[in-house]
Amino acid sequence: MGNRITSSLASLTECIAPQLQAVDRLFTLELESRLECVNVLVRHVSRFRGKMLRPCLVLLAGRACGADALTDAHVTIATVVEMVHMATLVHDDVLDEAELRRKGATLNHLRGNEAAVLLGDYLISHSYHLCSSLNDQFASRLIARTTNEVCEGELLQIHHRNNLDLDEETYFEMIERKTAALCASCCLLGAKLSGASEGVVARLEVYGRSLGIAFQIQDDILDIVGDASTVGKTLGIDIEKGKMTLPMIHFMRTAPREHRQLLRTLLESREADKGEKIRNLILPSGSIQYARDAARGQVERARSAIAGLPESAERQVLDVMAEFVIERGM
Amino acid sequence: MGNRITSSLASLTECIAPQLQAVDRLFTLELESRLECVNVLVRHVSRFRGKMLRPCLVLLAGRACGADALTDAHVTIATVVEMVHMATLVHDDVLDEAELRRKGATLNHLRGNEAAVLLGDYLISHSYHLCSSLNDQFASRLIARTTNEVCEGELLQIHHRNNLDLDEETYFEMIERKTAALCASCCLLGAKLSGASEGVVARLEVYGRSLGIAFQIQDDILDIVGDASTVGKTLGIDIEKGKMTLPMIHFMRTAPREHRQLLRTLLESREADKGEKIRNLILPSGSIQYARDAARGQVERARSAIAGLPESAERQVLDVMAEFVIERGM
Repeated sequence: MGNRITSSLASLTECIAPQLQAVDRLFTLELESRLECVNVLVRHVSRFRGKMLRPCLVLLAGRACGADALTDAHVTIATVVEMVHMATLVHDDVLDEAELRRKGATLNHLRGNEAAVLLGDYLISHSYHLCSSLNDQFASRLIARTTNEVCEGELLQIHHRNNLDLDEETYFEMIERKTAALCASCCLLGAKLSGASEGVVARLEVYGRSLGIAFQIQDDILDIVGDASTVGKTLGIDIEKGKMTLPMIHFMRTAPREHRQLLRTLLESREADKGEKIRNLILPSGSIQYARDAARGQVERARSAIAGLPESAERQVLDVMAEFVIERGM
Repeated sequence: MGNRITSSLASLTECIAPQLQAVDRLFTLELESRLECVNVLVRHVSRFRGKMLRPCLVLLAGRACGADALTDAHVTIATVVEMVHMATLVHDDVLDEAELRRKGATLNHLRGNEAAVLLGDYLISHSYHLCSSLNDQFASRLIARTTNEVCEGELLQIHHRNNLDLDEETYFEMIERKTAALCASCCLLGAKLSGASEGVVARLEVYGRSLGIAFQIQDDILDIVGDASTVGKTLGIDIEKGKMTLPMIHFMRTAPREHRQLLRTLLESREADKGEKIRNLILPSGSIQYARDAARGQVERARSAIAGLPESAERQVLDVMAEFVIERGM
C-alpha cells in the first residue's frame, strides 16, 4: 500500500521532475552557511525532507496554466514554500516534543529545544530572503501574509488545547490557517507566475485551500487509525497533546453519553496506553467515516474549482493530486 | 544614575519623538489579530519592550542625512526592526529542556515555552509582512539577509556554549552577527531612505555596526558588574547559560593559572552562588577594563565613521548616542 502510493506520487510528479530537482539544489544552496556548525544542523533537517507536497503544488498549478509556463521564479517560490513548511515542522517538534518525525530522530531530541528554535528561525529567515530575490514584492507580501495566518492557526490550536468541547467551526478556522493557507498560496503563486488571468488564479487558490483542508483532515485520521511504520512518525500525538481533531469532535457530539464520558476520562488520564484505548473506542463509531466524508467533500470542492479550466494533462494531474491527499496512508 | 541615563536618552531622542510615537502605533496596529487569543499573547510582548534603540538608530540615521528627510518609510522600517528585535528576545526566552528539567519544570513552564516559540514566529512573520508593504524589495532583501546573520550568530553561540577556550576572534564573529548586523542595517536603511549618497550610506552602516559591537560588549560587562535593580533584568545569565563573554575570554587568556583554574571550576559547578563568586574573581582583574577599552574603541570607530558628515545637530546626536551605549547602566 505504502509503495503503491509512493510510486503513484512519483508518476504524478514526473512531469515536473527537473524543476523538483532544481528546488532541491536551490534549497541546499540557499541554506549553505560559511559557518560549519550551521551547515551541520542544516544537513540534519534535509534528512527529514518529505513528500515535497507544497513545491509540487506551486509547480503543478503553474503548469496547469500552460504546459511551458514554468519559470525560474516558480522554482524559487517552490523552494520558499518548502522552507516555510520545514520551519513549521522544526518548530512543531519543539511544541509537540515528538520523538519521531519522518522516522528520524527530531532535532530537538538530539540537540535541545534551543537549537530547534534557532534552526526554524534560520529556515524562515532564508525563505523570506530567497523570496525577496524576486523582482517584485507580490510574492513577499503574500508569503508573509500567509505565515501570519499559519502562526495564528498554531496559536489558536494551543489556546484550545485540552478543550474537549471544541466546536467544528473553530476547528476549521484553525486548520484553514495552520495548513490550508499555505497550500492556497502555493497554487495562487504558481498560477500567477504563469501569467494566468485573475479568474484562473482565484480558482487555483480555492483548489489549494480545499486540498489543504482535506490534507489536514487526513492527517487527523491517520493520527488515530494509521500504521506507525507506514506513516513514519509518532502517532497518537494529537491525543497526547490534547488536540481535538475532527473525528474526536464528531464523536463528542454524536456518541452515546457513556462513550463520550469514557473518551473524556481517557483524554484526561495519564495512562500509557490511552492512545490505544481511544483508538478502540472511536474506531467502531461513525466518526472516522464522518471525517473521511468531510475530507472527500473538500477534494470534490478542489476538483470542481478547477473543472472550468481547459481540459489538459496538467489539469488531470491536479485532479489526481487531490485524490492522493486523502488516499495516502502516510 | 539610572534616572540620569534614562533622561539623557529621552533628551537624545526628543527630536524624533513624533516618529517614535508613530512606531508605537504601527507596532500595535500591525500585530492586531482578529483572534482574541492572539491579541492576549501579543499584549504580553509589551513586557519585553525597552529602550527602542533600533528604531532610534533608523530615525536618527535618517535625520542625520537631512533634518526634514524622515518619511513614512522610515517609520515602517523602524517598526520592522523593533519587531525583529522583539522576536529574538522572545525566542531567547525559550529555555533548554535540560535547563527546565534541572529547575524542576512544571507543565505550565512548558506551555510558556510553546507560546514563546509561536509568539516569536508571529512577530518575525509580521515584521517581514510590514517590510513587504514598502514599494521596492531593497529593505526586504536587506532585512532578510540581516536576520540570516542574526540566526547564524545565535547558532554559533549555542555551538560554543560551555567552550571555556573560546577565542576572541570567534567571539567577535558571533556578536557581529548576533547584535551588530541589525544595528548596521538600521543605520544603512535610515540613510538610504533619506536619499543619502552611497558613501554616506556606507559610513552610517559602519557607525551602526561599531555601535552594535560596543552595545553587546557593554551588555556582557553589565551581566557581570551591573546592579540588578538598575539593569532591570536577572544578571549572571551569560554565566548561567555557559556563554563566554569578552571579560571572561580575556581573563582565561591573561589571569594567573590558579585563577583561571578557579574560574573553570566555578563555571562548571552547579553552586547557587557561583555568579557572585565569579564576579568577585573577575572584578579585581584587568579583564573588565579590557572589555571597557574594547567597547570604547568601537565607539571611537563609530564616531569617526560619521566624522566626515557635515556638522549638524543630528550628527551630534549620533555622537552622543554612541557614547550612551557604553555609559548606560541598563
